Amino acid sequence: MIQERNLIKTIRRLAGSSAAAGLIRGIGDDCAVLRPSPGSELLVTTDLCIENVHFRRAWHPAPTVGHRCITRGLSDIAAMGGHPLACFLSLGIPDDGPQSWVNGFLRGLLAQARRFKLPLAGGDISSAPKITADIVAIGQVPAGKAVLRSGARPGDSIYVTGSLGGSAATLKQLFAGKKIKPTRSNPHFYPMPRIAAGAWLRGRSLATAMMDLSDGLSVDLAHICEESRVAAIVEADKIPIGKGAGLELALHGGEDYELLFTVPRRAKVPARIAGIAVTEIGEIRNRRDYSSAIGILGDNGKVRPLPQRGWQHFAKRS
Amino acid sequence: MIQERNLIKTIRRLAGSSAAAGLIRGIGDDCAVLRPSPGSELLVTTDLCIENVHFRRAWHPAPTVGHRCITRGLSDIAAMGGHPLACFLSLGIPDDGPQSWVNGFLRGLLAQARRFKLPLAGGDISSAPKITADIVAIGQVPAGKAVLRSGARPGDSIYVTGSLGGSAATLKQLFAGKKIKPTRSNPHFYPMPRIAAGAWLRGRSLATAMMDLSDGLSVDLAHICEESRVAAIVEADKIPIGKGAGLELALHGGEDYELLFTVPRRAKVPARIAGIAVTEIGEIRNRRDYSSAIGILGDNGKVRPLPQRGWQHFAKRS
Repeated sequence: MIQERNLIKTIRRLAGSSAAAGLIRGIGDDCAVLRPSPGSELLVTTDLCIENVHFRRAWHPAPTVGHRCITRGLSDIAAMGGHPLACFLSLGIPDDGPQSWVNGFLRGLLAQARRFKLPLAGGDISSAPKITADIVAIGQVPAGKAVLRSGARPGDSIYVTGSLGGSAATLKQLFAGKKIKPTRSNPHFYPMPRIAAGAWLRGRSLATAMMDLSDGLSVDLAHICEESRVAAIVEADKIPIGKGAGLELALHGGEDYELLFTVPRRAKVPARIAGIAVTEIGEIRNRRDYSSAIGILGDNGKVRPLPQRGWQHFAKRS
Repeated sequence: MIQERNLIKTIRRLAGSSAAAGLIRGIGDDCAVLRPSPGSELLVTTDLCIENVHFRRAWHPAPTVGHRCITRGLSDIAAMGGHPLACFLSLGIPDDGPQSWVNGFLRGLLAQARRFKLPLAGGDISSAPKITADIVAIGQVPAGKAVLRSGARPGDSIYVTGSLGGSAATLKQLFAGKKIKPTRSNPHFYPMPRIAAGAWLRGRSLATAMMDLSDGLSVDLAHICEESRVAAIVEADKIPIGKGAGLELALHGGEDYELLFTVPRRAKVPARIAGIAVTEIGEIRNRRDYSSAIGILGDNGKVRPLPQRGWQHFAKRS
């Protein structure tokens, strides 16, 4: 059984010095105290990671689970064009939870946090029936500049960073019983949040709307359409397809953590932003143009409605 | 089975308008966007509430669980002398989780949040083996003015708000198999965070150190001693004892959510602050005065070491 007091000591030790720009007081008081940059607004996002729902111990080595958890929060900050400021971890552990697993999880989480100069500033610990991690990521953005989902306008071009479906392709293999080595280049095990690309797009005032691709393109683009009250059309042969994936997984597979964004029709968008390829995949349309919010233009030159079939929790699939 | 999309709609409806001072964008984007008051610092705290660890469905009606969850976060804000700004809820629900229970939980949580003008600004939802709620409370405080645990100095007087042990007394009865009606005046079911008292003490620069009593006086005072590198002595016959409790529960029972604070020796402290009685219970001493950090002066005029026996998770007791 893991002792709470010892675990807190371990976390404080692994987290190292919590000295970071903007963090006045980290772990060890009733609250953490943050000082955002003057003239900035705060971004806050929380993401639950629960054993057998978001990951399986048999498939996902502990460090990859930690990496994936914190990446989800960082990706939400990226999607607003923000810079990360601090993170918090609420961690539930089974009474028989192995200390070595928890240590591996923390190492993976903290290594990824350090890449983005993100201090672990607090959290909570409890016993729980299954491993339960709630990650809170806090970021900042110049006041009034956060890129929302609601700013897409008819005529805007639709772009994505990177390629899509690679994470789902690996997940499909795992479900099929294949053993997959969790290499650093595999986006399922080690996805990377597009912080620099998101901040670049926000800094140039280029993106009219932006979100991260966590549930899958078909579902996430529908969110932008709903919040912006627009429709969209994407072109099948323009979708950048990830390693091992086909069009179906690129359209409906989740957890790629790439950015989906819209820009005004005539805006110039470079082929790469902050080292990541960006690809134009379609166009925002007026809502009344389509009975369904999103259409897809196929090889046959015909547009068909794109159904929303996104990421499902593991528990529901299995 | 609870559908995530429907649940999010229910939460948005119950949460009502998220319009609130300082909240630019609530539920519905990748992150919430907050604008703290100019010249303020941010306070952030997270608290896990897990079924059969922090509450039992058989003992705690759903609205009281929601009330208790959000109160834990608010109490941490109070303990820094802060004002609440926004809260976030990550909620895990069993696939057979009854919608009526979840609605009751949300009603209790949101009713208490509204009392403190605290908008629910976001969160996450997942399936989970047991009901799991992680509450994130965000507050603000004028820059440099947060009251930490580390500021107690030898000679300072030790105070508490309200009375202690009342929550533990009810819990003891529940463990003994008694049916207890969850009345509003019972601090176990409906604890109140001491936001106004905490802010008053911070505003007068009166408290040198402060925290909230969540784990029990003996454990929590030890935290102040540890962070401030001091020792303490409390007087048994000065401890304000809550309804149904005795000295033992007042010393070691948790979840009262009263404030524990220290003030300079000659500072004038009123008998009531923001409507709550405050009681002097002891004195901060130099660390080398005691082999144990905390002593208790008994009726017999003798000082004995006060052991740290605080709140234990339900799962560990039962």
